[in-house]
Amino acid sequence: MEHSHITLAHGNGGRLMRELIDAIFTRHLDNPKLDTHADAANLLHIDGEIMMSTDGFSVQPLEFPGGDIGSLAVHGTINDLAVAGARPLYLSLNAFIEEGLELALLERIIASLATAARQANVFVVTGDTKVVRRGEGGGLYLATTGIGVRDILHLGMDKIRPGDHVLVSGPVGDHGTAVMLAREQFGIRGDLQSDAASVLPLTQALATVDGLHFMRDPTRGGLASVLHEIQQATGLGIRVQQQCIPVREPVNAVCEMLGFDPLYLACEGRVVAIVEPSSSQQALACWTRMGAGCDAAIIGTVDERQHVILETPLGGERILEQLEDDPLPRIC
Amino acid sequence: MEHSHITLAHGNGGRLMRELIDAIFTRHLDNPKLDTHADAANLLHIDGEIMMSTDGFSVQPLEFPGGDIGSLAVHGTINDLAVAGARPLYLSLNAFIEEGLELALLERIIASLATAARQANVFVVTGDTKVVRRGEGGGLYLATTGIGVRDILHLGMDKIRPGDHVLVSGPVGDHGTAVMLAREQFGIRGDLQSDAASVLPLTQALATVDGLHFMRDPTRGGLASVLHEIQQATGLGIRVQQQCIPVREPVNAVCEMLGFDPLYLACEGRVVAIVEPSSSQQALACWTRMGAGCDAAIIGTVDERQHVILETPLGGERILEQLEDDPLPRIC
Repeated sequence: MEHSHITLAHGNGGRLMRELIDAIFTRHLDNPKLDTHADAANLLHIDGEIMMSTDGFSVQPLEFPGGDIGSLAVHGTINDLAVAGARPLYLSLNAFIEEGLELALLERIIASLATAARQANVFVVTGDTKVVRRGEGGGLYLATTGIGVRDILHLGMDKIRPGDHVLVSGPVGDHGTAVMLAREQFGIRGDLQSDAASVLPLTQALATVDGLHFMRDPTRGGLASVLHEIQQATGLGIRVQQQCIPVREPVNAVCEMLGFDPLYLACEGRVVAIVEPSSSQQALACWTRMGAGCDAAIIGTVDERQHVILETPLGGERILEQLEDDPLPRIC
Repeated sequence: MEHSHITLAHGNGGRLMRELIDAIFTRHLDNPKLDTHADAANLLHIDGEIMMSTDGFSVQPLEFPGGDIGSLAVHGTINDLAVAGARPLYLSLNAFIEEGLELALLERIIASLATAARQANVFVVTGDTKVVRRGEGGGLYLATTGIGVRDILHLGMDKIRPGDHVLVSGPVGDHGTAVMLAREQFGIRGDLQSDAASVLPLTQALATVDGLHFMRDPTRGGLASVLHEIQQATGLGIRVQQQCIPVREPVNAVCEMLGFDPLYLACEGRVVAIVEPSSSQQALACWTRMGAGCDAAIIGTVDERQHVILETPLGGERILEQLEDDPLPRIC
């Protein structure tokens, strides 16, 4: 490549754009369905119920302990399909690149994206790049859309009943805390890693649990926001026990120091599941025998009281409010 | 809505984000497949060969004569499916919104996007919004991914043969010129409109033309860049006659004044078709009897000489070079 940084001409449809696509995108993402000379990818016939989901990514910094915007752009979208009961098959990729971005950084990110896709057994089949002027972008924004085939058929918010148990597959707040620490502005360093990963093994592990009613991955807004979404959509209530919610010690420590609540911080590799009480021990056992789910826990119960309530270790309780101000923009 | 402009809290997964999605996105895009409380849309079974395409949109200004970034985000992606021989069915939508964007403007754009989708008979089934800080975005960037079903089966660059005729469905350069004029920096005003539109009627009109080999919509980089892509992918050459290429008089006038070449300026509602010589009059007739194709023309021929050559009206010829510098960033 004749440049070390992105120029406006890398986005104009001409020679440099073609070279950028060939040198970085095609080289790393190469697969039988990807033809960067075609307008559309032909996925042929797909058997089964097709699910579609999309996610945008604006995390800053672009690289952080445990991941980067590239791997996140795969995990974020395939996780939305996974918690909906689908097996992801194909992804589209959009990149909004800011003039001045270092090409070596872009290549590391796309290579990481390609590795994440390979590991999850999904193909990036179509893509588009746009270049925006310096000062009109945050380095790099990505958007991916995934399609998959549904193989867990009995899921839905409408299946949730009072008495159902609430499970979480692992400690919450790791991603939010790791990205926050990676920002220069906080001046704190730790060895915390983002939990960003495909949750497909976790969701598929519950496929045979008859009493499984609903799953969601707690990303932006964290665990508390997922509980609020369920509360609002169902009109039911949720009561969780603070001492049952797994939070890593360094996450707690950083949150105390900076005044954040880990229940509102993003995860990128966890699953919240709502399960019939008679099946919740079976679901928990499915997770705890996996490496990714070894810290899974039953954290609460659905009830009819129309609030999200947190029971504190000393026997008190408080309403877990809906998130208002943004504590951490560009977290995912 | 309690705010008149986008704040960071509109992107945090909490209350304001939910209100933004309900008040603007759900309200305008409402359709039976869209459930903004779900992680993924269920498209059920789809018969036929499934095609997938994606496009990002960063046009500036966000509104311009003949369209806006919202309608463009529909037309751009469904046109990529249409020229690949597919009938578009579903879209995903990503929005990267800059802090400070006026909510009334965002609503106009999403309403326009919804109208374009309805007119094209496609459903926006899943979406995501991200908010980025002031100075980290260009107001609004959109990305859409479309899926459709292929019903013109015999298309491909590999079908192109020496002797094939090159057709264009209408005047070139309207979109690029209209957007350029809408920018304050040029200080010129005209009554030129973007040609942005769905090309599906144009592509479906050629479905019964047996000699149809390939179609593409000449967007970024314009007609010249499409000819170069074909040249590079096939190893063949293309020779076009300047006097046969339809260009509107005001487009020519503005281009002469500002030093642009209309052959390199984006269209957003035109189709380039490569057709067997024995079928080219039939294809032309299919287009010219439609309103959208009334200025269609046969503009050149594929040959074996591995260059893109422009024949000038006075009998000269010159190589139509591949686009180098970006004349107009954020044109689509």
